[in-house]
Amino acid sequence: MEDTLLMIPGPTTVPKRVLDAMAQPIVNHRGPVYGEILEETTAMMSEVFQTDNKSYLLTGSGTSAMEAAIANIVEKGDKVINVVSGKFGQRLQQLTEVFGGESIEIAVPWGQAADPEEIKRVLDENDDVKALTMIHNESSTAVVNPIQEVGKIMKDYDALFVVDTVSSLAGDNVKVDEYGLDICLTGSQKCIAAPPGMAAITINDDAWKVIDSVDSPTYYLDLKAMRKSGDKSPSQTPYTPNVSMTYAMREALSMVLEEGLDARIKRHHIGAEATREAAKTLGLDLFAREGDYSNTLTAINMPEGVTDNQLRGTMRNKYQIELAGGQDHLKGNIFRIGHMGTTGLHELAMTFACLEMTLKEFGFEFESGAGVAALEDIYLKNL
Amino acid sequence: MEDTLLMIPGPTTVPKRVLDAMAQPIVNHRGPVYGEILEETTAMMSEVFQTDNKSYLLTGSGTSAMEAAIANIVEKGDKVINVVSGKFGQRLQQLTEVFGGESIEIAVPWGQAADPEEIKRVLDENDDVKALTMIHNESSTAVVNPIQEVGKIMKDYDALFVVDTVSSLAGDNVKVDEYGLDICLTGSQKCIAAPPGMAAITINDDAWKVIDSVDSPTYYLDLKAMRKSGDKSPSQTPYTPNVSMTYAMREALSMVLEEGLDARIKRHHIGAEATREAAKTLGLDLFAREGDYSNTLTAINMPEGVTDNQLRGTMRNKYQIELAGGQDHLKGNIFRIGHMGTTGLHELAMTFACLEMTLKEFGFEFESGAGVAALEDIYLKNL
Repeated sequence: MEDTLLMIPGPTTVPKRVLDAMAQPIVNHRGPVYGEILEETTAMMSEVFQTDNKSYLLTGSGTSAMEAAIANIVEKGDKVINVVSGKFGQRLQQLTEVFGGESIEIAVPWGQAADPEEIKRVLDENDDVKALTMIHNESSTAVVNPIQEVGKIMKDYDALFVVDTVSSLAGDNVKVDEYGLDICLTGSQKCIAAPPGMAAITINDDAWKVIDSVDSPTYYLDLKAMRKSGDKSPSQTPYTPNVSMTYAMREALSMVLEEGLDARIKRHHIGAEATREAAKTLGLDLFAREGDYSNTLTAINMPEGVTDNQLRGTMRNKYQIELAGGQDHLKGNIFRIGHMGTTGLHELAMTFACLEMTLKEFGFEFESGAGVAALEDIYLKNL
Repeated sequence: MEDTLLMIPGPTTVPKRVLDAMAQPIVNHRGPVYGEILEETTAMMSEVFQTDNKSYLLTGSGTSAMEAAIANIVEKGDKVINVVSGKFGQRLQQLTEVFGGESIEIAVPWGQAADPEEIKRVLDENDDVKALTMIHNESSTAVVNPIQEVGKIMKDYDALFVVDTVSSLAGDNVKVDEYGLDICLTGSQKCIAAPPGMAAITINDDAWKVIDSVDSPTYYLDLKAMRKSGDKSPSQTPYTPNVSMTYAMREALSMVLEEGLDARIKRHHIGAEATREAAKTLGLDLFAREGDYSNTLTAINMPEGVTDNQLRGTMRNKYQIELAGGQDHLKGNIFRIGHMGTTGLHELAMTFACLEMTLKEFGFEFESGAGVAALEDIYLKNL
């Protein structure tokens, strides 16, 4: 294998088609050629978000879109409910506070999904909240939060529903209009399988009304400026966009739509189930609570008898496979396998073969090939 | 010619070497391989800034670095002197105000460079200013501002000297330490000749002291977070960086250093002189005041008898050469030729040949080839 296999929850392996598209010569970002590419790409973005809203591309990480979502709606003293079930939920809370908001935290134990009933209760207690923020797929804990159920609840409240789908869009069900997501954002380097460095956001009319009423200390991530430039003909961005990443996103989104959004999501679900079954077959424990499992990555408790450095170091140095560690207090306690983007059966088979060999090296006992066999079973059942 | 020739002031044509580097497979942004690439790239960045400071890469446009420079030092009510001699000077002023600063504007007529004596006078009148901001190379007017002279003056004052070198670094003299630039920032897509989408910033100890004393409403562009991540081993970025653009920057900066920074700057100076002489030979008037000319782009008054649409449209549609128009109130009144990055003799020769043909088409009279001949003279004198 020439290149290291990325089995982390983003960036994922980027298909050669996308890398080649990215390497095309640069065009004038203020000219009609770029304008057409931008319009085509943002239209595909809206299709993947399953929304009639316009979408906007940001030259920045997923975090830049998280900041755009918060900074443009939160003013000093505004109450915001932040559902915090992991590191990225915390980030939306931190952003709320950085921009002067008063955070009402719904703390969910790491490894569990938020409870819609608890959210309803907190909404009832706080009828003056401006927004509720939620991470759809909490990649720090490999848990999926129930955005559809919460979206239904939110329809009875005035607050905006702000949802981060950085590590789920195009890999799990995200129906912006049907679920009632007022602001939804994502990143390029997860299930869309483009390189990192671009983010996307879509905003409905209710959210625009709030944004139009807010005067935020934000400039680079000013959504009103993005809307104004996007409405120009040809469509533009307020500041020089990453032209190469726009090519990459256009190609990656084309691949998503060629595969078919539903087929791609189903493929992610199968990969997730196969990963869980393979891990369990090897005697490993999943970190997330049963039923709350992410469909785009899996977190596995670090088994006793091997350290994070030993396990992931061996996978990296001996087998050229990158796994992710735990973040913050989970560092050393879990490892995470990303199965997003174009990653599927073949990559998981390699990964589990090498994971089995790594575990054997550190004295674990199981029948060789058992994990891979469990993978095969799930795929055979589903294909 | 297969691809359109970019003669705009950024993005510039990106060398194939850089595009190919960018298209390499993605690595784990939290692993040692990326850490090494990041450290190597930021070290080259500091070399090009001519500073012993550390430098930081931002996944964003040049404007993201402008915001980082302002947002991290300005608090509500802080006085900041903004030298405004064009659109980008205005942008630093807008950013100052967005982050609650009180702007003291030194308004310089568009097309002229700032006067160091005037700056000294305003500094003397305002002994409580926190910073002075200046665009080194104002690409909206094709004027270069005297950062070296102003840097000398600033040494007698406590205020930070914040300089934007987005369109000058690696194409004109920028010696961060020698000139006393406390914060200096740039972009990827100008004289460095990488694609757009990455920015860089370098910060000296005086500036860090101010940054450490400020609690800004900034998160994605938080410089303290960048310093903390950069100090890790391996070096990291706080949020997922554009890995591909890091490759591109590494390759583009390698090309800058292989050519030699002084040689590259001299090449830009020659290209600028050649462009001015060629334009004047064709009877065209330069927009900028004599002596204030930029070394990386040239602004030319739109001659009577042809419209912006006719001139630039013909250059684009008939000859596949992109020129830039004027911005804001200069729209339609000037056109701009970028001669930055790897753009030099060959590209300018093509451009002036086609510009001559375009002008002839609209009835202008001059000896065919006269502009190109003027170019040749300047290059022959200098090579």
